[in-house]
Amino acid sequence: MAVPKTMKAVVLRGRLKVNTEEVPAPEIRDPRDVIIKVSLAGLCGSDLHQYRGEEPYGFVMGHEVVGEIVETGSAVKKFKIGDKVLSSFCTSCGECSNCQAGWTARCPIGTVPGQPSIAGAQAEYFRLPLADSTLFPVPDDIPAELMLLMADILPTGFSVAMNARMLSGKIETKGVAVVIGCGPVGLCAITSATTMYETVFATDLYIPRLEAAKRHGAIALPLADLEEELSKRTDGQGADAVLEVVGHPSAMVTAMKLARPCGVISSCGVHSREIGLDGEMLYDKNLRLQFGRCSVRTYYPYALEILRQNQELFSTFIEHKVSLDQAQEYYTLFEQNKIAKTVFVP
Amino acid sequence: MAVPKTMKAVVLRGRLKVNTEEVPAPEIRDPRDVIIKVSLAGLCGSDLHQYRGEEPYGFVMGHEVVGEIVETGSAVKKFKIGDKVLSSFCTSCGECSNCQAGWTARCPIGTVPGQPSIAGAQAEYFRLPLADSTLFPVPDDIPAELMLLMADILPTGFSVAMNARMLSGKIETKGVAVVIGCGPVGLCAITSATTMYETVFATDLYIPRLEAAKRHGAIALPLADLEEELSKRTDGQGADAVLEVVGHPSAMVTAMKLARPCGVISSCGVHSREIGLDGEMLYDKNLRLQFGRCSVRTYYPYALEILRQNQELFSTFIEHKVSLDQAQEYYTLFEQNKIAKTVFVP
Repeated sequence: MAVPKTMKAVVLRGRLKVNTEEVPAPEIRDPRDVIIKVSLAGLCGSDLHQYRGEEPYGFVMGHEVVGEIVETGSAVKKFKIGDKVLSSFCTSCGECSNCQAGWTARCPIGTVPGQPSIAGAQAEYFRLPLADSTLFPVPDDIPAELMLLMADILPTGFSVAMNARMLSGKIETKGVAVVIGCGPVGLCAITSATTMYETVFATDLYIPRLEAAKRHGAIALPLADLEEELSKRTDGQGADAVLEVVGHPSAMVTAMKLARPCGVISSCGVHSREIGLDGEMLYDKNLRLQFGRCSVRTYYPYALEILRQNQELFSTFIEHKVSLDQAQEYYTLFEQNKIAKTVFVP
Repeated sequence: MAVPKTMKAVVLRGRLKVNTEEVPAPEIRDPRDVIIKVSLAGLCGSDLHQYRGEEPYGFVMGHEVVGEIVETGSAVKKFKIGDKVLSSFCTSCGECSNCQAGWTARCPIGTVPGQPSIAGAQAEYFRLPLADSTLFPVPDDIPAELMLLMADILPTGFSVAMNARMLSGKIETKGVAVVIGCGPVGLCAITSATTMYETVFATDLYIPRLEAAKRHGAIALPLADLEEELSKRTDGQGADAVLEVVGHPSAMVTAMKLARPCGVISSCGVHSREIGLDGEMLYDKNLRLQFGRCSVRTYYPYALEILRQNQELFSTFIEHKVSLDQAQEYYTLFEQNKIAKTVFVP
């Protein structure tokens, strides 16, 4: 399958503005690259950071991809042309000390495609660097559409729950967790958290999202009601773990309020502003906190198991499958919280 | 030994103002109380929070005490009159779920003596509540003066290092730690950290303190030099662990700067203000943080071992042994960072 000279792609052209354009198709640039013919490219909550931002424009968006390898660099050993693959949303070398420690999201030469320095996957073809240590094979027993969730949001949702558990130093399925934010990652966090905590609450400022949160296993309530119910169920102590999946300072302030003394706050929200935290509360509650991006490779096998065991639940997860030509329309709806998970089918 | 009707005590009388006064001696109020004849009462960095503060005045200061039991409440079972004891700086019941989980510093009925609701130990006599689950016997092989360090600062210094290790999920003696703050607790943190990390750096805005930090085992440098040296030794990555022993927002900002990606920040500083943290850095570095007060009972046996193995080092730790009548003078010097550890001998 020869790669054509040009292809259709979703290009960021300004604040809240994407164009579907004909652009040059990618070529192998490094022996560790592969070219993927994109089957599905997700629209992810973190795409909105760039979509809403003021970064330099003019690059192809997207970092969630399932597709088929159509070209391989000379150093690629674990994958071959024709393989159906899924890519982690961030590339990693697999060899540096960070990768060896399991911190693949912080590989010094890793990147997240879909930014000025590296074209993304919302396109017909996609160049993926460091293929051997970034790709996963698509297994036979899980539909490609579900596998797309494994690129970012399901491992991220799993990791925010698992990190809470590891922070607390406990592994019994016990206690009360609260998930703040019921978007796609939040729902993945909820399903994951139900395997680790006895009770999982969830909340979101956008009330229609609470229905999906209930389907995923949470006691989903508006914040004021949740505070009351949480207090009732914990003798006024608060949650053992709060999972922050929003990435806004106000969500962290809420998290601190909901956490019990000696509780933990695990955050996977993409923070970009200053977060003003109440120092007295941090001290008086002896809080532990974790921030940051999910190292997909490290959490992958566990997150895949969550997906495998919840295929029916997640089968309705992708609400919209649309063409690249509909990018602006669906970016707009997604940015306005009007739709849940959307996928482009080139 | 009968307790007299009145006694000498150090009473907080206003901002930066303590008086040595004749006050009523304490009496048993609860069956779990004991009355201790004070041999040594420490002046602790955290006393300065009240000394500098605007809280209601008029109470006896101090929460570090070694002494002899002279009266026991009817429910006290583990200790008897005549026992030489050391008290944890915060009382705990030993029975609630927090105490059982090892979070004795957050026992709902626990308190830190030396505040409006409970008189402190800088006095001739001291009433200690919840004696059975708050006191420790003074062992024969360690001088009382050294044992005083076990009331707060040595367990606190140990815990800030141990918590960093637990946050990181690693227990090998490896990697680089930085201690921010070289006051008494900082020195305890340094000695503890040298048993857990290959290299321990330390810094303090008050340069004369760096000498003591060196004696305790750190590479102690002014901040700018430390940043350079740390960067050189870690390929620009930063410290695996930063121990924050100051309790000021600026120390947390420095800690975040010094930590490596996926590093940990362990704080035992008593924070009371809003801490403005760079959300982008928290996310981009995948940081883990821990705050709060040391649960002395939980860390006690380990911290005692650090003391036992470093008796000579700590033997010069208490710089000044003074009478209660000299309280104002030594509070002033201590508040101005002019002296290190001081102890009152009633």
